[in-house]
Amino acid sequence: MSAPGGISIHVVDVSRGVVAAWMRVEVFRLEPERTLIASGIVSAKGLVEEPALAKQLSPGQYEALFHVGAYYRAVGVTLPAVPFLDVVSYRFGIADAEQHYHLSMKVTPWGFSCFRGGA
Amino acid sequence: MSAPGGISIHVVDVSRGVVAAWMRVEVFRLEPERTLIASGIVSAKGLVEEPALAKQLSPGQYEALFHVGAYYRAVGVTLPAVPFLDVVSYRFGIADAEQHYHLSMKVTPWGFSCFRGGA
Amino acid sequence: MSAPGGISIHVVDVSRGVVAAWMRVEVFRLEPERTLIASGIVSAKGLVEEPALAKQLSPGQYEALFHVGAYYRAVGVTLPAVPFLDVVSYRFGIADAEQHYHLSMKVTPWGFSCFRGGA
Amino acid sequence: MSAPGGISIHVVDVSRGVVAAWMRVEVFRLEPERTLIASGIVSAKGLVEEPALAKQLSPGQYEALFHVGAYYRAVGVTLPAVPFLDVVSYRFGIADAEQHYHLSMKVTPWGFSCFRGGA
Repeated sequence: MSAPGGISIHVVDVSRGVVAAWMRVEVFRLEPERTLIASGIVSAKGLVEEPALAKQLSPGQYEALFHVGAYYRAVGVTLPAVPFLDVVSYRFGIADAEQHYHLSMKVTPWGFSCFRGGA
Repeated sequence: MSAPGGISIHVVDVSRGVVAAWMRVEVFRLEPERTLIASGIVSAKGLVEEPALAKQLSPGQYEALFHVGAYYRAVGVTLPAVPFLDVVSYRFGIADAEQHYHLSMKVTPWGFSCFRGGA
Repeated sequence: MSAPGGISIHVVDVSRGVVAAWMRVEVFRLEPERTLIASGIVSAKGLVEEPALAKQLSPGQYEALFHVGAYYRAVGVTLPAVPFLDVVSYRFGIADAEQHYHLSMKVTPWGFSCFRGGA
Repeated sequence: MSAPGGISIHVVDVSRGVVAAWMRVEVFRLEPERTLIASGIVSAKGLVEEPALAKQLSPGQYEALFHVGAYYRAVGVTLPAVPFLDVVSYRFGIADAEQHYHLSMKVTPWGFSCFRGGA
């Protein structure tokens, strides 16, 4: 299995058992200063299909932001005025530019789970 | 995105951040009697690539068995004489044969998480 | 912290951010033959407060059954005719009768997560 | 069950099946400006037992920081030079000061899961 570097992000709404299509996701490199490297929406396949994420990324710290509150309001879920989850931050480090990092994100209006899903 | 029916199973060892390659997985139909429909190992992509799972499956109850204890022993993890997890059972229902059911399984020696990962 | 043996089971409905009060849970010892050792419902604290679970349990394999489909129907969630999750089985091993086993279960209609939550 | 307001935080290392004792956790109120309201370590019960968290907290956005990288290095796990998880951020909103918010955090070196664990 060749591992071409880059990040893939897959987002599932586990409160409904469907991919979180149309959720907005942004990815930032945090060093040397915070820089937006990709902004897109989750596709019908559950993926953030932005070309910038498929390229090798230099080692360092990154942050993905998931617009969970806006997603649930858009699909018709009633949230409190102050939602429990609004913009979820997920910070992760890339140690090796040649490895691929798959991020598997599961969300509900009340929590989330994100694990590296294999090289 | 056409959804051709069938099941896909993706298994990640989240204690190590890798796919659970070589873990044995069996899938049974439970009705009208318990019948093995597929037996295979997790591939280097993290998938159970058995042709029988890619076909449409009749509505009803199914069970997947994941040989978690044997997997961890094979990769060198020391487990108790009575492991906390040995053969993990995951029972799920298929309501609609034309939908695809993706099962996203995350395991450690001490627990697991399995959610339907979208049609 | 003295660890008195026994099992505690805490169940949260993470699709709604509440404890899964009134969900039925049964616990079986599997050896030498399958024997029911406790049957109860999740309390307002999220716990299955059955005295039999608080006692030391002999080493061996156990199974907890969680009536997830009935719970969601009772709280008003519409499930498919064949629900994705109905009666969820969780098998676990007790290696040491003097340790306490806390099982932390999170459920949605479309999946669940159960990890040992510390000695 | 009276719910006295405040936050409780319970942290489990699901790669080892134990509570994440000694992990450092900090909690900030984010409005009107970022203010540290508690800093402590996870106890042998798995809890962050800081009195400031047990009090009613005004509605608004909060952030908990979990020092996951330092915890795993302290318990002897070898991480990459750039760890996948270092300081994990969990932002959450409190809508109602009179409700209790239990945060159930599960971690491995390669991911984490945090859900509201019931009022």
